[in-house]
Amino acid sequence: MAEKVGFVTQGDAKATGDIPEVGIGMLGYAFMGKAHSHALKTIPHIYWPPPAIPKLVRIAGRSEEKVAQAARRYGYESYSTDWHDLIDDPRVQIFDNGGPNDQHAEPCIAAAQAGKHIICEKPLGRTAEEAKRMLDAVEKAGVKHATAFNYRFVPAIKLAYDLIQEGRLGRIYHFRARYLQEWIMDPNFPMVWRLDAATAGSGALGDLGSHIIDLGRFLIGEPVSVSALMKTFIPERKTEDGRIAHVAVDDAFEAIVEYANGAVGTLEASRFALGRKNSNRFEINGEKGSIAFDMERLNELQVYLPEEGKPDTAGFRDVLVTEASHPYVGVWWPQGHIIGWEHTFVHELHHFVSAVVNDTPVGPECGTFVDGYRNAVICDAIAEAARTGQRVNIAY
Amino acid sequence: MAEKVGFVTQGDAKATGDIPEVGIGMLGYAFMGKAHSHALKTIPHIYWPPPAIPKLVRIAGRSEEKVAQAARRYGYESYSTDWHDLIDDPRVQIFDNGGPNDQHAEPCIAAAQAGKHIICEKPLGRTAEEAKRMLDAVEKAGVKHATAFNYRFVPAIKLAYDLIQEGRLGRIYHFRARYLQEWIMDPNFPMVWRLDAATAGSGALGDLGSHIIDLGRFLIGEPVSVSALMKTFIPERKTEDGRIAHVAVDDAFEAIVEYANGAVGTLEASRFALGRKNSNRFEINGEKGSIAFDMERLNELQVYLPEEGKPDTAGFRDVLVTEASHPYVGVWWPQGHIIGWEHTFVHELHHFVSAVVNDTPVGPECGTFVDGYRNAVICDAIAEAARTGQRVNIAY
Amino acid sequence: MAEKVGFVTQGDAKATGDIPEVGIGMLGYAFMGKAHSHALKTIPHIYWPPPAIPKLVRIAGRSEEKVAQAARRYGYESYSTDWHDLIDDPRVQIFDNGGPNDQHAEPCIAAAQAGKHIICEKPLGRTAEEAKRMLDAVEKAGVKHATAFNYRFVPAIKLAYDLIQEGRLGRIYHFRARYLQEWIMDPNFPMVWRLDAATAGSGALGDLGSHIIDLGRFLIGEPVSVSALMKTFIPERKTEDGRIAHVAVDDAFEAIVEYANGAVGTLEASRFALGRKNSNRFEINGEKGSIAFDMERLNELQVYLPEEGKPDTAGFRDVLVTEASHPYVGVWWPQGHIIGWEHTFVHELHHFVSAVVNDTPVGPECGTFVDGYRNAVICDAIAEAARTGQRVNIAY
Amino acid sequence: MAEKVGFVTQGDAKATGDIPEVGIGMLGYAFMGKAHSHALKTIPHIYWPPPAIPKLVRIAGRSEEKVAQAARRYGYESYSTDWHDLIDDPRVQIFDNGGPNDQHAEPCIAAAQAGKHIICEKPLGRTAEEAKRMLDAVEKAGVKHATAFNYRFVPAIKLAYDLIQEGRLGRIYHFRARYLQEWIMDPNFPMVWRLDAATAGSGALGDLGSHIIDLGRFLIGEPVSVSALMKTFIPERKTEDGRIAHVAVDDAFEAIVEYANGAVGTLEASRFALGRKNSNRFEINGEKGSIAFDMERLNELQVYLPEEGKPDTAGFRDVLVTEASHPYVGVWWPQGHIIGWEHTFVHELHHFVSAVVNDTPVGPECGTFVDGYRNAVICDAIAEAARTGQRVNIAY
Repeated sequence: MAEKVGFVTQGDAKATGDIPEVGIGMLGYAFMGKAHSHALKTIPHIYWPPPAIPKLVRIAGRSEEKVAQAARRYGYESYSTDWHDLIDDPRVQIFDNGGPNDQHAEPCIAAAQAGKHIICEKPLGRTAEEAKRMLDAVEKAGVKHATAFNYRFVPAIKLAYDLIQEGRLGRIYHFRARYLQEWIMDPNFPMVWRLDAATAGSGALGDLGSHIIDLGRFLIGEPVSVSALMKTFIPERKTEDGRIAHVAVDDAFEAIVEYANGAVGTLEASRFALGRKNSNRFEINGEKGSIAFDMERLNELQVYLPEEGKPDTAGFRDVLVTEASHPYVGVWWPQGHIIGWEHTFVHELHHFVSAVVNDTPVGPECGTFVDGYRNAVICDAIAEAARTGQRVNIAY
Repeated sequence: MAEKVGFVTQGDAKATGDIPEVGIGMLGYAFMGKAHSHALKTIPHIYWPPPAIPKLVRIAGRSEEKVAQAARRYGYESYSTDWHDLIDDPRVQIFDNGGPNDQHAEPCIAAAQAGKHIICEKPLGRTAEEAKRMLDAVEKAGVKHATAFNYRFVPAIKLAYDLIQEGRLGRIYHFRARYLQEWIMDPNFPMVWRLDAATAGSGALGDLGSHIIDLGRFLIGEPVSVSALMKTFIPERKTEDGRIAHVAVDDAFEAIVEYANGAVGTLEASRFALGRKNSNRFEINGEKGSIAFDMERLNELQVYLPEEGKPDTAGFRDVLVTEASHPYVGVWWPQGHIIGWEHTFVHELHHFVSAVVNDTPVGPECGTFVDGYRNAVICDAIAEAARTGQRVNIAY
Repeated sequence: MAEKVGFVTQGDAKATGDIPEVGIGMLGYAFMGKAHSHALKTIPHIYWPPPAIPKLVRIAGRSEEKVAQAARRYGYESYSTDWHDLIDDPRVQIFDNGGPNDQHAEPCIAAAQAGKHIICEKPLGRTAEEAKRMLDAVEKAGVKHATAFNYRFVPAIKLAYDLIQEGRLGRIYHFRARYLQEWIMDPNFPMVWRLDAATAGSGALGDLGSHIIDLGRFLIGEPVSVSALMKTFIPERKTEDGRIAHVAVDDAFEAIVEYANGAVGTLEASRFALGRKNSNRFEINGEKGSIAFDMERLNELQVYLPEEGKPDTAGFRDVLVTEASHPYVGVWWPQGHIIGWEHTFVHELHHFVSAVVNDTPVGPECGTFVDGYRNAVICDAIAEAARTGQRVNIAY
Repeated sequence: MAEKVGFVTQGDAKATGDIPEVGIGMLGYAFMGKAHSHALKTIPHIYWPPPAIPKLVRIAGRSEEKVAQAARRYGYESYSTDWHDLIDDPRVQIFDNGGPNDQHAEPCIAAAQAGKHIICEKPLGRTAEEAKRMLDAVEKAGVKHATAFNYRFVPAIKLAYDLIQEGRLGRIYHFRARYLQEWIMDPNFPMVWRLDAATAGSGALGDLGSHIIDLGRFLIGEPVSVSALMKTFIPERKTEDGRIAHVAVDDAFEAIVEYANGAVGTLEASRFALGRKNSNRFEINGEKGSIAFDMERLNELQVYLPEEGKPDTAGFRDVLVTEASHPYVGVWWPQGHIIGWEHTFVHELHHFVSAVVNDTPVGPECGTFVDGYRNAVICDAIAEAARTGQRVNIAY
């Protein structure tokens, strides 16, 4: 087992006034690199005292011009065009992998072998096999590991989780989730990495579907079987250099899922839902209550709890999840002052930094590599069910 | 006091299988004539046994062709172009006045003197003085009287009333109501009777404002003072014969109101609110709860009752007011099968027929001529406050 | 071919002032009997001149007390406890079957053989085989036939249909529909006819699913394959006489469907969705537009049409479908005065009476027995797919 | 005129790679201190290249323990318990006043005299007289000045502004705005500075009302008259040291306003609206369009533009204001990834820093001290109208 880096604990920090620092190495400067870097800098502004102050040690990415700019912009001490430099840098205690899907496995495995704690963007691997090798590596190394299913850190979703855990919905009957976007509907939209099977693994399934598969596991439990359909509406796209390329990934998928606890559900993701910008919605129906959520109104949770109240005024409650007593959100602003999408990363990275510094569990509040691996197994099963037209059982 | 017509009582009807009939005389065949006639025919379909089966005896209106058609359409036994025939017809027990505003006072007073029970559309009179004469007439005659503020019979509004009566909102702090339409915004829209001061009395104030003034009195209590502004955005219109006429009625008004119980509120009505088709919305904030309502979603009531439930899931509840246990609506369809605007007339006329047949009180569930008169006093006070720029006290 | 009953045509009626009558025989006095009877009486109140004035000739049902009361309540000239009397009554021109599912086939076939025009509640048959025999009978008799998928007559749904027909959504990619209720969630809810496989055929599938299957065919087109899951959450119920009975019908089903035009969709129905009273919602995503609908707000249609308008203000439009120019609704009230669920029956029966009187087509505006039969084929395929775990192709 | 501090311009920065720094001195470490400090640090994360990188030079506040912690938390180079130190520090180029209302005038005037550019929280002064002195000071000094009406920087509100400026709503008829909170409804809530007339000046009026008064001026134009009512529901509160204090500020106010362009409106603010956490809503109705907004859903704008589109699909559009082309929001995340309340400060401070560095105008995009002063005049007029019961004309 690789040696873990030692920390002054949070308790000491409070006692002495010394708050420790934790060194971050970031892979990727684009969408996820920006979101993670900004979140890491935000932690001490919002949590005080923080478990540790993130020290942005080094950022890596392929374009020197862009990675240099990113380093200056977010305040990294150094940058590199070679991710190995992150692994080799002894100041890096947490390796944060925000690179494209084909840059997940090798760097994470190397980081684990070097004893770094790891948080990796989803989907963890492009296949269950790849994800399994990553899981094996972190378990062997004994490091903390997280798969960045950031939507677990939406206050309203955590509130939903808490309500279910407290039994306030009773036995769960239904889960229906769909994650809809529209950004590749134009037939002239080019062949980008997210549409390339070799780089991305899958299309809407791994990108959007993995989020709702995770929410199903987080909120409802383990699935036991899936039936599915996958669809590529526009099977050919132009590459940036003008060639016609075949699109081998799914533009959309639809699945029926049965859970071990008897609940049944539908899962759907699409990049062809005009007008739906980032519409991750789900509904849960239980014996004693129901819940509905929409990511485009992420500060709200719709809750139906007829036994908690009088019958004449039973109705879905539009809970504005911004009270000090609600999950995560009390550190921000007074009630009614809503937060945005990026804040989930602040919650997630604060949680992971805290788990690293204080040696506390990463899951189930945060997804781990176990969750990343199981997610990949389900994605593979959905792809198989779609291909064969047969219901497929889930086995990890 | 005029002699009232006798009825076989509802109790006897149940015992013997004989359900009485009650004779209706209707003034007006247009918008309100259609709504009232259809509602009267609907009563036995929905309420069984009904307090009485409405017998459509006679309908009166100015155009012989139209009134003849209306008679055939709704099943009236006879028709007339002279409203006096309704008064003179001994079969008419209930006089239902759905004519234009300048046809309210004289026919209602005559009907009262003839001992007819009377339900009259709102606004009762064009001025408080006119309404007072009508009130005096029915009180002198000892007949049942109703002013058809039909929105009291929206199930969601009656539910709001019940919640307030039960004290579940506690002390009331705020009432804000606005009734918005858009149908005269086109400058080429002609001068119609609703824009003519002599016929209509006022514009948005009497037509729309009278509804929300009534809801304020029904739900909150008596007002003690008003400040106001009235506005005519398009001061000249073409008449149907091509003349240019001055518009002396208000296109919109806005008022601040203070209630005797200390609550404060705003009242607003406009026919210049583009996109708002029939948007009668109000919100009430009390010490222990809040309520919001929108007529365009009249089957729903938004209710906030934080003490009835747990703090973590407090939120405005979207109560679908279609349960069998909700006011009025249980006679219709199974839960979730919504009703429409016209159903308020079925509830209202059933209530009035029942009050007549069983000699039970018309108010406070239904507005009476007292409510019609007080409404007119408030309308007059708003007009005065707008004219003078001064806060005006309300005195009946 | 049986001889059809002759009518004075609508044209003549207008010319002469004579509006024909059409004789109705109704089977069933409960939920559907009430809705249909009230709708038939309403036709002349709302449409003038109507194609014919429905004459309520006879109503049949099993309980003499109840059928006698229904006859008086709705104004039927006579009643019977034997449905054969409806067939034998020469005054009956339209046979309206609102009885339970196991009373659909035999009476409808007999009515067809007697030359009656027929409108039958959905699901047409309990199986595709039963529905096929019914279809064969009406086609052989040459009578007009309708399956009462009344939701085709929701103004907002007809508007959606029109938008799609006009090509304003372009190529359709997605259809997702779910119809949710909650009325049998209590384990003590008894074994009623809708839970009995022999009487009802299926559970949520035939009752609720048939509606959304029909909407999919109406709006999107013919399906080519289905995958499915069916679930009975509470497999044993008490009968009214105290026995424990096995529930052989589904409490919920979920299906994935692919359409001939390449669109993919999910279909779901459940009677175990707490808080969802009558929640029939669907969403359609096309190349140029998207649509969303909820039956609990049936006067509204959500429409996204980014090319019709400017990019900066693209958004789902909440269209209040109450304008005079909108389908069906112009005969009712001024804009913004919403209608209810029952009005769909007025539109549907008006359409069918008109088709009968004027010898115009019943479909596609109204479902026919062809639609009822194809619906049953799809229901059977969903049941087979659920049982076998295999994708099943649809073949009529 | 005081000498202004020189800057390397943004153009040079791009050319040379050198981005200038701008020194910030902050008064206040509480709610506004946190929001402003976090926003200043966020600027370079989100805007690149920024007009200047804010350098947090010094923060001042009354409690040494708290101000020292704040300095460490947000990265200020130094701190002080005396605001004069901010004025005396030559590194401070921008003075950011986030202190309580009675700490606005004197420090701002001193800062102006020292040639600092100034952004001050709203309300600018407790009275029009106080605000006028502040305005005179900055005008005399020739420094840039902003009153931090941050809601002008909500993307949806700026979109509304743009639509109105482009004439897409036509002539404006109506503005109705209400800002509702609930945080002092508990009678045991103590006497805090916001309830103390000497410190706060007014209650809901200055705190919440000033925001909607500003939005009215920003969106509609200058008001010409007001009628009003003010109310204190709980006139006595306990101080923290146990005394009973009289509450001289308003718990709620309601006003009618007429604008110079003929539009009429209502303004209301309350801290007694149970269930409304931070509910700043307004609606605008114009000749060609209408707009509605709710701060609790600040990423959305409801827009009705019937001429931009076809009549059959006219409806309020729910515009998700998260597109790259929408105001302010393109620098953040991909479409559909919503932002929160705090982001308005990032936009506002970026704008002010840019105005300072590039010597560009602060208004009308951002409120200036002129806007702060006029706002105070209107607040005073509302108070006078409430006291006298008379309509009061506005004169600056």
